[in-house]
Amino acid sequence: MTLRAQLLLGGQPANGEAAAIHGINPATNERLEPGYPGASPAQVAEACALAEAALEPYRHTPLEARAVFLETIAEQILALGDELIERAMLESGLPRARLEGERGRTIGQLRLFADVVRAGDWQGVRIDPAQPERTPLPRSDLRLQYIPLGPVAVFGASNFPLAFSVAGGDTASALAAGCPVVVKAHSAHPGTSELVGRAVVAAARESGMPDGVFSLLYGSGNSVGQALVADPRIKAVGFTGSRRGGQALLATSQSRSEPIPVYAEMSSINPVLLLPAALDSRTETLAAGFAGSLQLGAGQFCTNPGLILGLKGPALNHFAELAAEALSQADAQTMLTPGIHQAYQEGVDALGRVEGVETLATGREDARPNGCKPRLFRTTATHFLANEQLQQEVFGASALIVSCRDEAELVMVLTALEGQLTATVQMDDQDHALARRLLPLLERKAGRVLFNGFPTGVEVCHAMVHGGPWPATSDSRTTSVGSAAIQRFLRPVCYQDCPPELLPEALQDDNP
Amino acid sequence: MTLRAQLLLGGQPANGEAAAIHGINPATNERLEPGYPGASPAQVAEACALAEAALEPYRHTPLEARAVFLETIAEQILALGDELIERAMLESGLPRARLEGERGRTIGQLRLFADVVRAGDWQGVRIDPAQPERTPLPRSDLRLQYIPLGPVAVFGASNFPLAFSVAGGDTASALAAGCPVVVKAHSAHPGTSELVGRAVVAAARESGMPDGVFSLLYGSGNSVGQALVADPRIKAVGFTGSRRGGQALLATSQSRSEPIPVYAEMSSINPVLLLPAALDSRTETLAAGFAGSLQLGAGQFCTNPGLILGLKGPALNHFAELAAEALSQADAQTMLTPGIHQAYQEGVDALGRVEGVETLATGREDARPNGCKPRLFRTTATHFLANEQLQQEVFGASALIVSCRDEAELVMVLTALEGQLTATVQMDDQDHALARRLLPLLERKAGRVLFNGFPTGVEVCHAMVHGGPWPATSDSRTTSVGSAAIQRFLRPVCYQDCPPELLPEALQDDNP
Repeated sequence: MTLRAQLLLGGQPANGEAAAIHGINPATNERLEPGYPGASPAQVAEACALAEAALEPYRHTPLEARAVFLETIAEQILALGDELIERAMLESGLPRARLEGERGRTIGQLRLFADVVRAGDWQGVRIDPAQPERTPLPRSDLRLQYIPLGPVAVFGASNFPLAFSVAGGDTASALAAGCPVVVKAHSAHPGTSELVGRAVVAAARESGMPDGVFSLLYGSGNSVGQALVADPRIKAVGFTGSRRGGQALLATSQSRSEPIPVYAEMSSINPVLLLPAALDSRTETLAAGFAGSLQLGAGQFCTNPGLILGLKGPALNHFAELAAEALSQADAQTMLTPGIHQAYQEGVDALGRVEGVETLATGREDARPNGCKPRLFRTTATHFLANEQLQQEVFGASALIVSCRDEAELVMVLTALEGQLTATVQMDDQDHALARRLLPLLERKAGRVLFNGFPTGVEVCHAMVHGGPWPATSDSRTTSVGSAAIQRFLRPVCYQDCPPELLPEALQDDNP
Repeated sequence: MTLRAQLLLGGQPANGEAAAIHGINPATNERLEPGYPGASPAQVAEACALAEAALEPYRHTPLEARAVFLETIAEQILALGDELIERAMLESGLPRARLEGERGRTIGQLRLFADVVRAGDWQGVRIDPAQPERTPLPRSDLRLQYIPLGPVAVFGASNFPLAFSVAGGDTASALAAGCPVVVKAHSAHPGTSELVGRAVVAAARESGMPDGVFSLLYGSGNSVGQALVADPRIKAVGFTGSRRGGQALLATSQSRSEPIPVYAEMSSINPVLLLPAALDSRTETLAAGFAGSLQLGAGQFCTNPGLILGLKGPALNHFAELAAEALSQADAQTMLTPGIHQAYQEGVDALGRVEGVETLATGREDARPNGCKPRLFRTTATHFLANEQLQQEVFGASALIVSCRDEAELVMVLTALEGQLTATVQMDDQDHALARRLLPLLERKAGRVLFNGFPTGVEVCHAMVHGGPWPATSDSRTTSVGSAAIQRFLRPVCYQDCPPELLPEALQDDNP
């Protein structure tokens, strides 16, 4: 398939009218062709107008048709075959196996949401039947269902060029909710975005969905994204990226005459607690497991374990030695973009210079560009508590071990933590009392609390929460992974004494 | 019961350290004793610290105990007897029957939330059992439940001194969710607030709830409210009031290092559509019904019908004449506060001066202070579309009839409307086609769409939505009335491979 480097405005290819972006092969720093001209302000507005025009027909398509649309997107993505994987490898530096796995996840998400759409529970139907005989006042017939918020802006994420990009989790859940989607492609993988975008358009056409249900925009810098979030027709935003990026979109939303929900997944260091008995009895396994989790995808996961908490003592020292040994021998992995690599380098360099922070390990030297050499640091709880900088996420395979004097200091460190996507507890039976004491605190800090595992690896299922208190996300009341993500793009409407013929299908008496 | 004019800091009375506020009897402009000294910044902080300290014990109380607490609040409010009603009459100018009805609603809300707490559905349990044999990777055991956000700040509303004030809907739903509550009393009814606050404290004590589960603060101006919303221990805000007030609280939330959800119910003019056949066949009934709804509580309802939309012609003229006649003969009703009365006067005076707006009716002259003389205005869709000022809520018994040239212009007016709490359709069988065409538009504009009724009168039940797109509320994804209001104060947490002994009760295998 020849890459055309065109915007997709409601399914119609269009030549961008602003400066072009190019992907860069991070393994070689080679600039990739073609260049992708960006959307002009008028083209952003056109995509939003098309999305608005598609809203009514799209949200009223039968649920079965909507589900088939999602499944057809999955099929069309599969039909792209190896070309998709190869382009994504080129643009992201990620290995084939990872991208094939990610494609599987992307397909799985779309199919999961197809099932969710069909099941219909997300409509949240509640019915209070009329009570005409009630005194002193009769009660009306009241029926509630959830309806889509309206057109949604989705920002592709750099670190999941398939599963959280053009047809990723945000797009799948918004389309499932009945919302047309306008995607701003991540500039790191425009070719991958084009291929997937064309698959979505083909699926929309094949399933008879209205033009405008999907658009795809490119743009350098922030102007296209900001214009998109500022457009009055956009009613919600899905974003995965940096804290600064998320905050900028939130500020744009707040400056609209009608502020809208911004679901920004921003930053998390994902504390891993090594409780004493587990640390004693499983030092080697824990060190190996941690080193593996930290290096997964060059540490470029939102749930990367960036913070290890334990009680000071020989076992924690031994853990640190083993982990340092493993990481020192680790080969560098290509990071997603030169910019991300540079930020990683600056982040680990800055961390290494902080007083009281000791560098335990640096991965092997590597002459190739943009290689992430894993880093492991250590500090004391006293230093950690005194310096907020030590809580800042360094995106990539970097972790900090914090040794706590005693349980009380461990509690202080947990209390001082910002909101997180995950918190992990490594525990044995003898750790139960402590785990029980810490659990309420962990619940308040994180969207997912996991036991005797590592946080990388986010299952796409019904009970998943990929979210958490600020600054992990901008809205802790939701999740961006799993079937509950559909709720982000819905709002309730009550119908009072609505004539049966006018009632939405889900609210009719004969609806199961 | 002697009024003590003290703050309630986690159940302990305390003398306020800032300037005092006084209630004013709006029927006489008489200043009411005692004066209520406001909370100092340190006292605001103390209430928040107590709420934070109460969070863990309170959210872990058994659901049955929490439900009994809510029911005990209801009993303690009833036990205040006539003193509560009399003080509320004095401070609000509202008649006895209305306040007795409102007390019934307040009690009913607390009891409804007690039932909701017991039923437990709000915990939103989802379980994905482990699949140890799954290939290529086994699946962990994943369980989701919703937990309380944390301490909640509640602002009493002027227009419901019982049902949306100290122990009103926001407090009931937050307590039901497991969140301690710090109430900022509305300065218009401090005595009513004190009585209800003491009832809540008595109930907390009687039910063995932790100190700090409830605090009550007074304060003049905005400083107490702003300090409360800025306090890092507060995790959500419930507010009913003006658009300016809601926006100020939102801005404070956004300037926190951790922004929090602000549920502000702000402004709505609640369009009523008189479809042609209904207008023709029921002109008199509609005019009488509208005039009654408009005057209810001196028009001081959030769902007051402030906008009438119809197609121009003899029937709409006749409707206008009949409504004008009824409203011209209406007696003035005392408004809640001199400030609200003044704002009403300024609002109706300004509306009457707008070019293209005709004053159809002004209620009877009345020498008593703070009387709301109902007003009815009329304009054309052309004028309405050209002037955003005509969409602004005038709080009180003021309504504007907008005559539309044809259905297309009616659609244009609806399209131009801001978000609303309600939209009402008056229709007969012959209006079905038009109603069907308008319904999708109405759904997008309002949280509740009602048919052949009037919007005043908000049922407290499961299917109610009292909410709507901006500026009706700051968060259209929720409701502030009805059992779904509990969801505002919850967030999901996923437990992955949690040892059974540590699992929260709702997630245990043997939980029904």
